[in-house]
Amino acid sequence: MTLLLDSIKQPTLLVDAAKTKKNIIRMMDKATANKAVLRPHFKTHQSGLIGNWFKTLDVDRITVSSVEMAAYFAQHGWNDITIAFPVNIREIRKINHLLAHGIRLNLLVEAQDTVKLLSDAIEHETGVFIKIDSGNKRSGIPIQDTKCILQLSHQVFKSDKLLLKGWLTHAGHTYKATSVSAIRSLTEETVQRLKDIRTQFGEDGLLLSWGDTPSCSVLDEIVGFDEWRPGNFVFYDIMQYHIGSCSLADIAIAVACPIVAVHKERDQLIVYGGSIHFSAEYIAGDSGFRLYGYPVLLERNGWSELVTGAWVRALSQEHGVIQLPKGMTNSFRAGDLIGVLPVHACLTVNAMGKMQNLNGEYISCFR
Amino acid sequence: MTLLLDSIKQPTLLVDAAKTKKNIIRMMDKATANKAVLRPHFKTHQSGLIGNWFKTLDVDRITVSSVEMAAYFAQHGWNDITIAFPVNIREIRKINHLLAHGIRLNLLVEAQDTVKLLSDAIEHETGVFIKIDSGNKRSGIPIQDTKCILQLSHQVFKSDKLLLKGWLTHAGHTYKATSVSAIRSLTEETVQRLKDIRTQFGEDGLLLSWGDTPSCSVLDEIVGFDEWRPGNFVFYDIMQYHIGSCSLADIAIAVACPIVAVHKERDQLIVYGGSIHFSAEYIAGDSGFRLYGYPVLLERNGWSELVTGAWVRALSQEHGVIQLPKGMTNSFRAGDLIGVLPVHACLTVNAMGKMQNLNGEYISCFR
Repeated sequence: MTLLLDSIKQPTLLVDAAKTKKNIIRMMDKATANKAVLRPHFKTHQSGLIGNWFKTLDVDRITVSSVEMAAYFAQHGWNDITIAFPVNIREIRKINHLLAHGIRLNLLVEAQDTVKLLSDAIEHETGVFIKIDSGNKRSGIPIQDTKCILQLSHQVFKSDKLLLKGWLTHAGHTYKATSVSAIRSLTEETVQRLKDIRTQFGEDGLLLSWGDTPSCSVLDEIVGFDEWRPGNFVFYDIMQYHIGSCSLADIAIAVACPIVAVHKERDQLIVYGGSIHFSAEYIAGDSGFRLYGYPVLLERNGWSELVTGAWVRALSQEHGVIQLPKGMTNSFRAGDLIGVLPVHACLTVNAMGKMQNLNGEYISCFR
Repeated sequence: MTLLLDSIKQPTLLVDAAKTKKNIIRMMDKATANKAVLRPHFKTHQSGLIGNWFKTLDVDRITVSSVEMAAYFAQHGWNDITIAFPVNIREIRKINHLLAHGIRLNLLVEAQDTVKLLSDAIEHETGVFIKIDSGNKRSGIPIQDTKCILQLSHQVFKSDKLLLKGWLTHAGHTYKATSVSAIRSLTEETVQRLKDIRTQFGEDGLLLSWGDTPSCSVLDEIVGFDEWRPGNFVFYDIMQYHIGSCSLADIAIAVACPIVAVHKERDQLIVYGGSIHFSAEYIAGDSGFRLYGYPVLLERNGWSELVTGAWVRALSQEHGVIQLPKGMTNSFRAGDLIGVLPVHACLTVNAMGKMQNLNGEYISCFR
């Protein structure tokens, strides 16, 4: 069976399962070659079914971004879950509930008062990673602050129900790196600093956990981390393509959008597909240029290469505005469909809340 | 009963019902004073309950942005609904279904081939507005193109099941206007041009429909439109505040966010509350400055004025980064809550999918 384009009435998130599986296998092989265990971040696909594709490759541990998402994947048979977000003490009941049901969790901490609150409130043994800020300046202890990192590590290590698992960092600043060598430098610098911290701490068996799609995609060799937690690689997107993490052919999702108006006078298509479907994220260029996605032609077994010289130039709540090369609007009519490769896969999947594969079958999803 | 802040575990969208009702009454009075009928856009609140607050003021007609949303509000007793989006011919079955159940709809058209498709496929009489582009350059026939507008109007007028209701425009370009006088000029120019079109068309009883929150808020007098369709005014937001549509005290929603980390060294709070809660929309300033929202202090009966000198400087998928004035982080601990006034109410409501009032009661919502 192939995709029944006629059945699509509204913006519809299409998943090319073959591309997705290829992306998964490639990342799996690369982690293995680098002696790291893959602990993929499931916030990108948020899908029990796609999770199963990892299971067939013997992946047995995952990363999620919220307690709710941990609960969802626990229901889908996952039993070793890192919640890669500073532990939200207000959700302690739900955390205790998961632990009580035998789910092995890893929580992230970065401050002594949180560790204190957590020690007091946790009812079962839980894994804990110290969150390190390797330059992203979002959450974590700055990687230079060895003293603070070691202090917190000792506090966790001595705590009764908190099992220190190691040090975890998300190099979100690779998204802004301008070259492969810049990504390589910051990766190597990070692993060296974290190794030093582990040596100073002096206990065996503690892990260095690393993860972001750009570094894990762009670099051939990443030596020294025990686990990798990329997420976006499962689908990739236009942002990753611009970073150099993937080819356009690797992008495994597209949103099918009904065309609702054709504006020949300005070479534009107006589509049903806006920021409530894609998210409002865009890539900013010079002189106010905004890139919200690239159009592709939908076919019964997937989609074409990019439409040369075309891009999504604006999104409002439900509308998208696609700019085409001069004269090309003649190929389209209101009522046709067009595909759009999204700028940010994670936010698009989250906004859409449901997906279907190229056979038209729905793919179960968290939201 | 007042808001039980202790019960909030995750990012939670709070609605101040008193402020909301005040915003509704103010807009209602203004429309009446300007001899226009209010046909409020319900895409902002997307709530059956809040819709009822309009009903008590004898509002009997509404605007929505999708067929699905029309179906939701039809279930909530609304029977005169304009779907303010170029008609998506792929949803004709759902449209026919609503009409078959006696729901009076108004659809938007802007091209002859769509009118042809619609005439062929529609099974019951439906209202139709001609969509006019008064300068927003998204959808609609350019307002200068009188010939094309009149041609399409005649095509609809002559059609069997299509009942021409009039001409409708969304002045989305008021969002980019830099002064009240600029908004006034473009409003007056638009009404004059539409009146000319109506006169040339020569039939009685056809309506001029106008709508956008900035013009309906900023201008005291808007003469000549038969109906107004603003939406955002129900809650307002930071974008509207920056345009000058409202005061900060008028903003009727805030997102309660758990604080998960306090970074004294850079005067920042990391909160649970990211682009999946607020949307990724921001207000861009000079030198890469981004404004994603303003923090407020939560109280048992609402929230404080702005925290002076503080703003939300970054959002990622689940995280928000709040910048505070020097030293102020001392007042906060991980586990506390802080409120954030969002940049764009419509997208935040849509992303959150549920809301609660200041008594902690859930407010039913479309998504």
